[in-house]
Amino acid sequence: MRPTSFIRLLNRAWGTVFWNQTYTDWAQISLPGPTPSDSPNPHQALDEKRFFSDSAISFTCLQTDILRELAPNQWITTNGIFGHLDSHQLTEEALDFISYDSYPNFSTILSSIFPNAAPDPLLDRRWSWNLSVARSISPHFCVMEQQSGPGGWTNRIAQPSPKPGQMRLWTYQSIAHGADMVLYFRWRTATMGTEIYWHGINDYHNRPNRRVAEATQIGREIETLGPRVVSTQTSAQVAIVSDYDNEWDGELDSWHGPYTRQSVRAWFTALQYQHIPVDALYLRSTTTLDDLAQYRALVYPHPAIMTDATAELLTEYVRLGGTVVFGARTGYKDSTGQCYMRPFPGPVAELCGVTVEDFTRIGPSERAPTLRWRAVDDTTIAAEAFNDIIQVETPGAEVLAEYAGSYYAGAPALVRNSVGKGSAYYYGAVFNVESAAALIQRLGLASPVGDWLELPRPVELCIRARAKTGERLIFLLNYSDEGQTITLHKAATDVLSGQRVQGAVVLAPFDVRILSETDPAGAAER
Amino acid sequence: MRPTSFIRLLNRAWGTVFWNQTYTDWAQISLPGPTPSDSPNPHQALDEKRFFSDSAISFTCLQTDILRELAPNQWITTNGIFGHLDSHQLTEEALDFISYDSYPNFSTILSSIFPNAAPDPLLDRRWSWNLSVARSISPHFCVMEQQSGPGGWTNRIAQPSPKPGQMRLWTYQSIAHGADMVLYFRWRTATMGTEIYWHGINDYHNRPNRRVAEATQIGREIETLGPRVVSTQTSAQVAIVSDYDNEWDGELDSWHGPYTRQSVRAWFTALQYQHIPVDALYLRSTTTLDDLAQYRALVYPHPAIMTDATAELLTEYVRLGGTVVFGARTGYKDSTGQCYMRPFPGPVAELCGVTVEDFTRIGPSERAPTLRWRAVDDTTIAAEAFNDIIQVETPGAEVLAEYAGSYYAGAPALVRNSVGKGSAYYYGAVFNVESAAALIQRLGLASPVGDWLELPRPVELCIRARAKTGERLIFLLNYSDEGQTITLHKAATDVLSGQRVQGAVVLAPFDVRILSETDPAGAAER
Amino acid sequence: MRPTSFIRLLNRAWGTVFWNQTYTDWAQISLPGPTPSDSPNPHQALDEKRFFSDSAISFTCLQTDILRELAPNQWITTNGIFGHLDSHQLTEEALDFISYDSYPNFSTILSSIFPNAAPDPLLDRRWSWNLSVARSISPHFCVMEQQSGPGGWTNRIAQPSPKPGQMRLWTYQSIAHGADMVLYFRWRTATMGTEIYWHGINDYHNRPNRRVAEATQIGREIETLGPRVVSTQTSAQVAIVSDYDNEWDGELDSWHGPYTRQSVRAWFTALQYQHIPVDALYLRSTTTLDDLAQYRALVYPHPAIMTDATAELLTEYVRLGGTVVFGARTGYKDSTGQCYMRPFPGPVAELCGVTVEDFTRIGPSERAPTLRWRAVDDTTIAAEAFNDIIQVETPGAEVLAEYAGSYYAGAPALVRNSVGKGSAYYYGAVFNVESAAALIQRLGLASPVGDWLELPRPVELCIRARAKTGERLIFLLNYSDEGQTITLHKAATDVLSGQRVQGAVVLAPFDVRILSETDPAGAAER
Repeated sequence: MRPTSFIRLLNRAWGTVFWNQTYTDWAQISLPGPTPSDSPNPHQALDEKRFFSDSAISFTCLQTDILRELAPNQWITTNGIFGHLDSHQLTEEALDFISYDSYPNFSTILSSIFPNAAPDPLLDRRWSWNLSVARSISPHFCVMEQQSGPGGWTNRIAQPSPKPGQMRLWTYQSIAHGADMVLYFRWRTATMGTEIYWHGINDYHNRPNRRVAEATQIGREIETLGPRVVSTQTSAQVAIVSDYDNEWDGELDSWHGPYTRQSVRAWFTALQYQHIPVDALYLRSTTTLDDLAQYRALVYPHPAIMTDATAELLTEYVRLGGTVVFGARTGYKDSTGQCYMRPFPGPVAELCGVTVEDFTRIGPSERAPTLRWRAVDDTTIAAEAFNDIIQVETPGAEVLAEYAGSYYAGAPALVRNSVGKGSAYYYGAVFNVESAAALIQRLGLASPVGDWLELPRPVELCIRARAKTGERLIFLLNYSDEGQTITLHKAATDVLSGQRVQGAVVLAPFDVRILSETDPAGAAER
Repeated sequence: MRPTSFIRLLNRAWGTVFWNQTYTDWAQISLPGPTPSDSPNPHQALDEKRFFSDSAISFTCLQTDILRELAPNQWITTNGIFGHLDSHQLTEEALDFISYDSYPNFSTILSSIFPNAAPDPLLDRRWSWNLSVARSISPHFCVMEQQSGPGGWTNRIAQPSPKPGQMRLWTYQSIAHGADMVLYFRWRTATMGTEIYWHGINDYHNRPNRRVAEATQIGREIETLGPRVVSTQTSAQVAIVSDYDNEWDGELDSWHGPYTRQSVRAWFTALQYQHIPVDALYLRSTTTLDDLAQYRALVYPHPAIMTDATAELLTEYVRLGGTVVFGARTGYKDSTGQCYMRPFPGPVAELCGVTVEDFTRIGPSERAPTLRWRAVDDTTIAAEAFNDIIQVETPGAEVLAEYAGSYYAGAPALVRNSVGKGSAYYYGAVFNVESAAALIQRLGLASPVGDWLELPRPVELCIRARAKTGERLIFLLNYSDEGQTITLHKAATDVLSGQRVQGAVVLAPFDVRILSETDPAGAAER
Repeated sequence: MRPTSFIRLLNRAWGTVFWNQTYTDWAQISLPGPTPSDSPNPHQALDEKRFFSDSAISFTCLQTDILRELAPNQWITTNGIFGHLDSHQLTEEALDFISYDSYPNFSTILSSIFPNAAPDPLLDRRWSWNLSVARSISPHFCVMEQQSGPGGWTNRIAQPSPKPGQMRLWTYQSIAHGADMVLYFRWRTATMGTEIYWHGINDYHNRPNRRVAEATQIGREIETLGPRVVSTQTSAQVAIVSDYDNEWDGELDSWHGPYTRQSVRAWFTALQYQHIPVDALYLRSTTTLDDLAQYRALVYPHPAIMTDATAELLTEYVRLGGTVVFGARTGYKDSTGQCYMRPFPGPVAELCGVTVEDFTRIGPSERAPTLRWRAVDDTTIAAEAFNDIIQVETPGAEVLAEYAGSYYAGAPALVRNSVGKGSAYYYGAVFNVESAAALIQRLGLASPVGDWLELPRPVELCIRARAKTGERLIFLLNYSDEGQTITLHKAATDVLSGQRVQGAVVLAPFDVRILSETDPAGAAER
């Protein structure tokens, strides 16, 4: 292709015909800068992030190529889960595995960083989602920086000290979610520079302190526990689906990005409350049907950008028996972030059996309508933030709930369409914990050990299993500063104490218990 | 004059002797930039806006001169009502008429744009004021962009969809206020660029939708209504007076600008609630006594800048029978924005028969004193924001109300001075809806059809009349999402249905009714 | 030393080894600018302020050297108490005495400037602290700008008018705190420029007004009062200690700076409420034991930076009978702002008889634990903001209070250590008015005229005495807008009226009374 043809493609991809931005020469192109009235070109902004990611990966490869040649027997990793970086591609192309920095104590000051942030009831437990993302990149990853003390820079992000037990709790949180290597940040607190308040295990003065004592205890436990855990596998029946295109486009685009962030949080919270392990799944050009087929259900909240290829893959997954759940704003953009001239939800309209006739944001002074369920007499759940007014297009598609208010009262709000052996759900709004919980029940998702292990809400359940032996290590993590009672309806081994336990067992505040259970059936499940 | 004399004038006009800013060469002068402690030269800042306006107008003329030569039979207009632009002068010098972009749905998200904005009970009805300003420029204007869908950029200003009926309501709002041409923004929603969420009548996909249906209905109605409306005239007995000098000076100067914005809103709201049509009137160097004489009353809330020429014009208007109302902070600045060395309110002190002895802002933690009226036993109305402590200087001047609190309790707060056949009111504070309503009653202003047409508060009344035929078209606009009952004490023709109506009539939510009445007396009034 | 040695010292002082900032050439060094993630080098930031101060002082000397040569009989002063300037050194090296600009009416709008500022119950009375700082520089100082009207720039800081009497009150506030010269800002309000709203005594128009009248009254009073006041001395038994190193380091460092600002305010408020005069004392390299020895007690709230020299001086002061009070975060930094590798509180650990084993900030969503006093049954006082969990190291050190909550409940929170004839208090938290009041009682501090003069809370007590004659001028300042009753249990002379007064006496709102009492014992005290 001639250069002029390439630049014509760029003009098309960035929609530069709008507001006279057409480029005629490559030298005219720069990174997006400030614009009058803060109106950047969204398609260029999307490509900017792709460019950032490609550049960072290419630069990493430059270094890892040298390292691999000179040190062929060394692992290569980096703590890489930051913004504007396709960490999956980075890991694939340059690393042996990914590393993550886990600082769950950020949760104590989130409200002072983001004054308008919705309160997150999960607090430090929310970091389990971040760890799940790390696991989606490398099933066995490293936590390069595990928080081991109070944190903050001299001038901002002032965190209180982790409570006694929290450092150990967070360490097991990392391990339970797939970390096979954990390093504390840091050995001794720096006495100089802007990070003098990012405390390490030791204080400036090296005197014994409770953090050193806690690290000692963890070290002793890991000495015996470690070999039993390393290289075991987590498993989940459900995945929350993301992709970098929508993540990056949604940073600028307030008509879908904030909805995805809200819905992911809602689903993760609802699943946590019911002790249902969940994976993070990033759809990529290399994702296969096999990658999807291991899950009973996929929740893909608001994929504004949806290609026909992705739609086909998801349709095939459903046809073979899978379940997929979409929310409002699905499928109206192509991979450049431009809008399709096709009825919403575009490439998945047929899969979902619906189109969207009308739609509206819920304004800041408006109250979102609630849902009226056809099966149950409940109108308490709000259809939040954005409402697609759904039109059923496929005869077999079933309306599960309708809007109970606003000018579209009575219009379908949640529709299920059966395709092959599976089904697709289209929900016209943004998810909250209540609507996610209602769908979890509807989809029949449940705790994998729910038949014998009763857990209160503040306790997280994680399972790492070894296929060869059939042993399942059941991690129970108490994020609460109060004791929590769990109930075992059958006996299991408490790995840290080595004792058999059964019946009511109390977890102390911030305490951790690891049960071992050999369940060949469970091992075969995955 | 020699160049050095001109620069001496500039130094005087900008008060550059203060803080050592004296210029000795034109090359030293630039546009105002950031200053230490955010302390710009206010006189230079005022002239900057004059320069912006002059430049834009001069550039427009450059283009319209060419257009007029090449296309002498075309109208020339532009959608020009933006900041830092004298749209009156622009229209006079370059255009056939002005155009305005009407987006009343901004009202749904104002609180998210201006968190500290006082709640505006008028919401989308407030756009009627903007349309009145357009009408002050061109009695028959064009709405170049009439909102026809949900709006917002990708990254901000996210508006919900207009409710069913609102698009039609807003169209008639434009027409009722003088628009003789209305174009929707836009035919089809853009699929690319930063404005993909400024929806047009059609969605990206061109499928039928309720906005297309609503446009169809409007089109059908206008087909018959249009000829009857075009070129009819609005009329009003009262005008709210503004001028560009005070508007521009008041952008920087928080000692009068915010007061004017608050008082204009208060007066417009109070007049709307009582169904009293009001004009916007801009005082300009070309304004004549005839321009003023058509109004029974002029409200000129806080003209800090007041020249002797303007004061003379207003005095002549009062002498001939007019009524003028001023608020606090009137008349202490000359046209450079410098303060007179004359007692407040400077050029209009004699007209008002008062001087201001002492004055104070109401501090953020203070409560404004209320008014004690001499005629009525009411002390519920707050004398808001700023208090001039008035001293009566003319024997005949009558104190109508005094302050009921603070250290100046008992001092005059509202004084009326009779001059010739008319009178001038000086109110020492900033207006709110209550104090404006009290003055409306005192001035004897009322709905022009109040004797036979009862209207609830949420319904706006507008009248367009044709002098030749004496026909008055009475527009009734329901901004509420609830039905509103109006009562006709005599029969009138419902123009859209063609039927005669009388008695109680219900306007559906967001509905519009246009009554026709032939009233030769009314036609002669103007 | 060779240049490379100097730069090595700079690298060490700034901890440039952290995050690769090492300098190899002086030309590489600039003032701190914006950094990625807003993470400036705190040690460089501290030296920047020292550089600012040194530069300003050196520039001032350049001018005062000339002035002294040309006008040897003139006083030289400047209004110099601004940020990033060691006004003590400035005065010592260049001036005859310092001048201060006193604008107590800033207090009326503080909440609109600092929305998150804790409410300050002292309001304009808080300026007494600023005047105390001026007095710490020059026992007899000048107020170069004494506020005499409403204030503010065109675009910000809009203050209401001082209430009748406040201008006089604030004038006596300055005098009572040591001003021997007071000039009003300004004669006439400027008619041009950005300061047209910083009103002077006269308005733009020179007409008589109440500010002129108030100035006239003050002038008349000072005519007789002046000679009696000039060169009299204030005295105090307690001082709140500050130093420029901690002040400047604490601007960036949110782990001690905000605590000091809160604690100084708390102590000053608590002392004001109990009518206990207090001095500001700046520790400097030239401070001597004699400077300290005149005080019964020193409160040095959170001196993060603490040198061994300072610690020795304070220890000597205590040994000779003095009392020193420290709060959390004391003594962990050296003079470069780097952290000692010594147990907290570093150089004063021995003086205080404690070390700090563990510590935590109170997070934004956490509630600070209260104190449990060993002597009294009170657990209502919160141990605010930051908690040092204290470990007693010296057998004789006495635990006065312990934490009543959080994971360190029962750990010492307030410890007293006797050293020589005196004692040192270490309080693990940040002070509030209640904890300061509890310590005031414990230290036995009280009003110097409490035995015969009963004062309500809103009235400030200041004393200026003349050693030669033994006359004490007792200033009583009523900051309230309500009358206040004081009670004299013995007769005294009302200086302004010349009359003897005794028993209950009412101070009008904003009024001032000056009593004279001859007390040779009091004169000898100092």
